[in-house]
Amino acid sequence: MQQTLTRNQHDGFLYEQVVNQVMQMMESNTLRIGERLPSLRKMSKQLNVSIATVMQAYVQLESQGRVETRPQSGFYVKSRPIVEPSLPKPTRPRPLPRRIQFGDDISSLFSLSNVPGVIPLGVANPAHELLPSKGLTRALKKVASLRPVETMSYCYPPGDAGLRRQIALRSMERGVNVSPDDFIITTGATEALSISLQAVARPGDAIAVESPTYFCLLQIIERLGMMAVEICTNPDTGMCVDSLAQAIQTVDIKAVISVANFNNPTGALIPDENKKTILDILARKQIPLIEDDIFGDLHFSQTRPHTFKAFDREGLVLTCSSFSKTIAPGYRVGWVSPGRYFEPVLQLKQLVSSATASIPQLTIAEFLRSGLYERHLVRLRRAYREQLEQLRQAVAGSFPKGTRLTRPEGGFVLWVQMPRGVDAMTLHSLALNEHISVTPGSIFSATGKYRNFIRLCAGSPWNDKIAGGVARLGEVAGTLAN
Amino acid sequence: MQQTLTRNQHDGFLYEQVVNQVMQMMESNTLRIGERLPSLRKMSKQLNVSIATVMQAYVQLESQGRVETRPQSGFYVKSRPIVEPSLPKPTRPRPLPRRIQFGDDISSLFSLSNVPGVIPLGVANPAHELLPSKGLTRALKKVASLRPVETMSYCYPPGDAGLRRQIALRSMERGVNVSPDDFIITTGATEALSISLQAVARPGDAIAVESPTYFCLLQIIERLGMMAVEICTNPDTGMCVDSLAQAIQTVDIKAVISVANFNNPTGALIPDENKKTILDILARKQIPLIEDDIFGDLHFSQTRPHTFKAFDREGLVLTCSSFSKTIAPGYRVGWVSPGRYFEPVLQLKQLVSSATASIPQLTIAEFLRSGLYERHLVRLRRAYREQLEQLRQAVAGSFPKGTRLTRPEGGFVLWVQMPRGVDAMTLHSLALNEHISVTPGSIFSATGKYRNFIRLCAGSPWNDKIAGGVARLGEVAGTLAN
Repeated sequence: MQQTLTRNQHDGFLYEQVVNQVMQMMESNTLRIGERLPSLRKMSKQLNVSIATVMQAYVQLESQGRVETRPQSGFYVKSRPIVEPSLPKPTRPRPLPRRIQFGDDISSLFSLSNVPGVIPLGVANPAHELLPSKGLTRALKKVASLRPVETMSYCYPPGDAGLRRQIALRSMERGVNVSPDDFIITTGATEALSISLQAVARPGDAIAVESPTYFCLLQIIERLGMMAVEICTNPDTGMCVDSLAQAIQTVDIKAVISVANFNNPTGALIPDENKKTILDILARKQIPLIEDDIFGDLHFSQTRPHTFKAFDREGLVLTCSSFSKTIAPGYRVGWVSPGRYFEPVLQLKQLVSSATASIPQLTIAEFLRSGLYERHLVRLRRAYREQLEQLRQAVAGSFPKGTRLTRPEGGFVLWVQMPRGVDAMTLHSLALNEHISVTPGSIFSATGKYRNFIRLCAGSPWNDKIAGGVARLGEVAGTLAN
Repeated sequence: MQQTLTRNQHDGFLYEQVVNQVMQMMESNTLRIGERLPSLRKMSKQLNVSIATVMQAYVQLESQGRVETRPQSGFYVKSRPIVEPSLPKPTRPRPLPRRIQFGDDISSLFSLSNVPGVIPLGVANPAHELLPSKGLTRALKKVASLRPVETMSYCYPPGDAGLRRQIALRSMERGVNVSPDDFIITTGATEALSISLQAVARPGDAIAVESPTYFCLLQIIERLGMMAVEICTNPDTGMCVDSLAQAIQTVDIKAVISVANFNNPTGALIPDENKKTILDILARKQIPLIEDDIFGDLHFSQTRPHTFKAFDREGLVLTCSSFSKTIAPGYRVGWVSPGRYFEPVLQLKQLVSSATASIPQLTIAEFLRSGLYERHLVRLRRAYREQLEQLRQAVAGSFPKGTRLTRPEGGFVLWVQMPRGVDAMTLHSLALNEHISVTPGSIFSATGKYRNFIRLCAGSPWNDKIAGGVARLGEVAGTLAN
């Protein structure tokens, strides 16, 4: 991948390196509050980057309020991360098959979350200003001008060959053994997940899920009349391998669903070793695994995390994803690479909605071909990382004593454990009255756990309004805690 | 509606009137082969249209090979429709609940139908050259330029308000009592039909369908684990009211699905009176009716047929449709107005694919607002009518003796009953070897009836290649008949 970097991408990486270096020095107390940052020249030499790049990074840190300039003197540490808040404890659900009964509770929860003016801490969407608007509109106009017939024609499943090629290339660059013919384009990841589950399990079947897990997965399981088996997770390393192994011994699990890379809501990342072990366990019983990799491209470290698919020797992994968190939610372009389940998933796709809309497919293919996606991702990851850190600091500073936070290494959602007495549903209602949306924790469980948890999203650039919203949220939570 | 006609639409109607008048005179033998058409002046007076309009109509008839000019003399009948072929007999399936078991047979049937170069008699798609390419591309570019944020944002269910308003307006102009808030935008009619059925019935339930009916409806019933009850139909008036009433007495029917306006595959149109009676029967048992109105705008007579919805007093009708046959298949913009089932359908939409892609919705809304749709429909209806008539004549002229044909008053599909011995599956295979696609009749039945039927589509402008394909098809059918 290194070879294909453009000049701008390269600069982006260097810039990020400088910011990282300073942040690490601050976090490790090598640099304390009030101390002077290394001079531009020194840092430039140390990291082998230009002075301009260091300058750019320092100015950025200044704009975030982390450092300050003193005339004729240089850059000084203004604040450093406050004492790192504790992580939530590992979860301990009982591994029993449960029928889910949300009914229409969840949609009513969100009915007011998308109203303009509401502070969108409850909605896991990227803000418009973070999306590659110019490049994408250019790609769209190009497609409209040069390929009018294709924009109007059915693009039958498995979907546009050019787009599948671009998606496959990105996987192949990471060493995943796939070809464009392994992919099926869908209407967002939602459809991919729904048809994947239908392809591998039937009504009444037991499906293992992380606890907590993305509520839409639980809703899909509910709609299909399946049962959910909640598996223990760690707040940083995600699904607990032993718990999964044990559940498989005692329950006839027909499939596993995992948001392995930056879990929604916890942000947890399952380490490679655990991914391999999980696949070994599943292979013995030939149990398929559906992974939702929608946050995989949004890693904060230098390298993208592997998918389960990268370690899959049996064709048992169905990887689902989309560009909704990275390019444009409204394009609704998702995909699945269903391994050995390709044919049944393809047939289900044909039946549930037939072709996916052509224009969004052609436009995203054009955008990917242009090379703009990698450059955009560099900026986007940095933005999400900063926004998430700002959100963590703000929550740590304003929520009641005893509040615990996850420490995601990617994505833009944060899982907040409040003291026992704080009822998240009550907080949700009170917050909405003040035009602040949050997501109550209980909808991330099949059995209504996590009543004192909320999920907060850092999809928007930090500003005073959001800061005020988080502060107010902390106050309200404080009143509920007493 | 008359008041809102543009100048061009008005001319289109007049022109169509002249063509109709001549065709009727030819069909009723008022004008015989070799006889002179009424003079331009006379016809102009008779129909109260301009001489130029009559001239335009006569030239069109000439280009179709129906009349010829003789210098200094006028227009003469060159050919007239050959003896009208007989209609297929009414169908007589037994009204028993059947489990459908297509498996993957149907997708394999179509796997080669969309290959370029194959004569597309098997595919119910409009040809590119019939679609409003220019107007739509203009609308797309306008949306891309003026509304970049909206093109990228989620357009949550129920979908774009502007589009729902345009769709509702078209229904309201026809006297249907609906508002924009009654509509949910979907990924094509396929998704609308699938979630509608899930909203009103459960696995194991018995669903009444026309026999024959659109195979995708049967596939949806199969996938949802429901049972199909085939109801008798007439080749011209569609679903037989008495048979439906009887089936409801003997079977616990949970829902009815009807392609009332220009049934696929027969082209039948259920008369208004029958629609009302059917709704009365269903109202007594509070049985919901799902209608697929995808061909409703493609009527050949002056007035659009009513939907079931127009007569629905109980909110029991779920009307599904899309712009795939009229504006652009690749846009995948469909909708459902689910009556009293609005909430469950909306929730299902959120679960199966969440938002529908934004750009196609915004673009079609813009196109509808521009007023271009009505003008386009005038041209499109004329094209489909002519293409379908040419197809009928060609089949009547080349298929073995005893072949029967439907006589659709709209849409562009033709249902062909061949002599008993002709196996449509064999014909399908032999035809595909010669790069001609046809749809075998048995997939339009839950119980494998209609083995000697095929469905042919007239979605493309008539040309020598298609004519040759139909002639060849007739020859092959002839060999199978002997």
